[in-house]
Amino acid sequence: MQQRANKPGKPAKRSGRAPLPAQWGNALPTIQERNDIKRNSILRAAAHCFNRSGFHGTSMDDIAERLGVTKPALYRYVKNKHEVLFACFNVVMDVSFAHLQRAEQGEGSGLQKVRAALAGYLGELIGELGHPIVLTEEGALQPEQLRALIKRRDELERRFRALVELGMRDGSVIPCDPKMAIFALFGAINWVPKWYREGHEWSPAYLAEKFVLLITRSISAVPEELDSAFSVETYNLQQETSDG
Amino acid sequence: MQQRANKPGKPAKRSGRAPLPAQWGNALPTIQERNDIKRNSILRAAAHCFNRSGFHGTSMDDIAERLGVTKPALYRYVKNKHEVLFACFNVVMDVSFAHLQRAEQGEGSGLQKVRAALAGYLGELIGELGHPIVLTEEGALQPEQLRALIKRRDELERRFRALVELGMRDGSVIPCDPKMAIFALFGAINWVPKWYREGHEWSPAYLAEKFVLLITRSISAVPEELDSAFSVETYNLQQETSDG
Repeated sequence: MQQRANKPGKPAKRSGRAPLPAQWGNALPTIQERNDIKRNSILRAAAHCFNRSGFHGTSMDDIAERLGVTKPALYRYVKNKHEVLFACFNVVMDVSFAHLQRAEQGEGSGLQKVRAALAGYLGELIGELGHPIVLTEEGALQPEQLRALIKRRDELERRFRALVELGMRDGSVIPCDPKMAIFALFGAINWVPKWYREGHEWSPAYLAEKFVLLITRSISAVPEELDSAFSVETYNLQQETSDG
Repeated sequence: MQQRANKPGKPAKRSGRAPLPAQWGNALPTIQERNDIKRNSILRAAAHCFNRSGFHGTSMDDIAERLGVTKPALYRYVKNKHEVLFACFNVVMDVSFAHLQRAEQGEGSGLQKVRAALAGYLGELIGELGHPIVLTEEGALQPEQLRALIKRRDELERRFRALVELGMRDGSVIPCDPKMAIFALFGAINWVPKWYREGHEWSPAYLAEKFVLLITRSISAVPEELDSAFSVETYNLQQETSDG
């Protein structure tokens, strides 16, 4: 096992880090990649435990046990439980910002950008990241961590509202209060990990697409354009395809 | 202070209890009413603490301190912290079922019934009950409490889905997957206590009405019928009225 730990207090970066030399023609992960993989495994295991038992009801032993490693092995990669919780929140934020930025820079109407950003985020939240990523334990963060999180969240909400306003200007979104619209959309999305379970009848990709189409219909200026996507017939058909 | 405590493990009933004899021409609350008031105060204080610090981060001392009473006084009305948490969940469920039942028995299309049930629930959740009612600490419930809660929640979801299906039959709701629609609506609603604060620029009644109109537009067969309700102009006008 690698002894090199990431700097404590810093969430694993998703990109932009100088690559280390590749061995075996890139067939094996680099040291850095292996460290990131391990750290991400820790965050997934921790998120699972936090969501099941809450922050205070979860010990570092629980997280180590879920990963099948010793507690000392765990401490090579993370400093303490608060750092783990904060990192979980930051991973979610990183994912959200990544999809938002892609949507902002991409083509399409304001509504299409909102849809792309939300669907990308939701798909990754319940898919790659593992469904039960923690989102409701802010109260357990330390004050400076909470301030940092709120600052990021405020920026996220502000930029999402700007996309709704863009949609109102380009005619894709009905005249509405962007603040209320974003609260409603975020609520529907952020509640998904409360009921979605791995192996659900809806795949992450299927759910991300259909669910976001459904909830953004609330602000769409042409809500009928996609109505065929919601019909029970389409739903059953898609299910058979994804199951088969 | 009255020595009579409610039976432990039983949430305060909202109605249907045989009235005790009125004194002073009903100007004063009865003993039963005073007990219910005290118990509800405990649940509100507890919900506030749980939401801020989590179940494990909250002590009975914290709850007593918030109420300005002693811990022994608290124990006259509740048995332990688990009972308090369970009672908080049950109060939310009671409110939800009460509004659902009224909507089921009332007039109107399937969509109108969904709207009435959700708006009544949301208005009470953030208004009378106090905004920060706990909804995310199921993990802290004891197994038999969690089973009882899930049973009630399943019934609630089933009956809400039936209203969506009614709406599909009467033409007020687009063809959609009722399960997905209810998850989306519940998510948006249940997330409100995460961002709504007492003294918010939107009053509970204003928010409950506008918010539910907005989120149910996602499944409305005639989404344009109420679009004037969402416009920024209407919003500003309403704000001035409710502020003035």
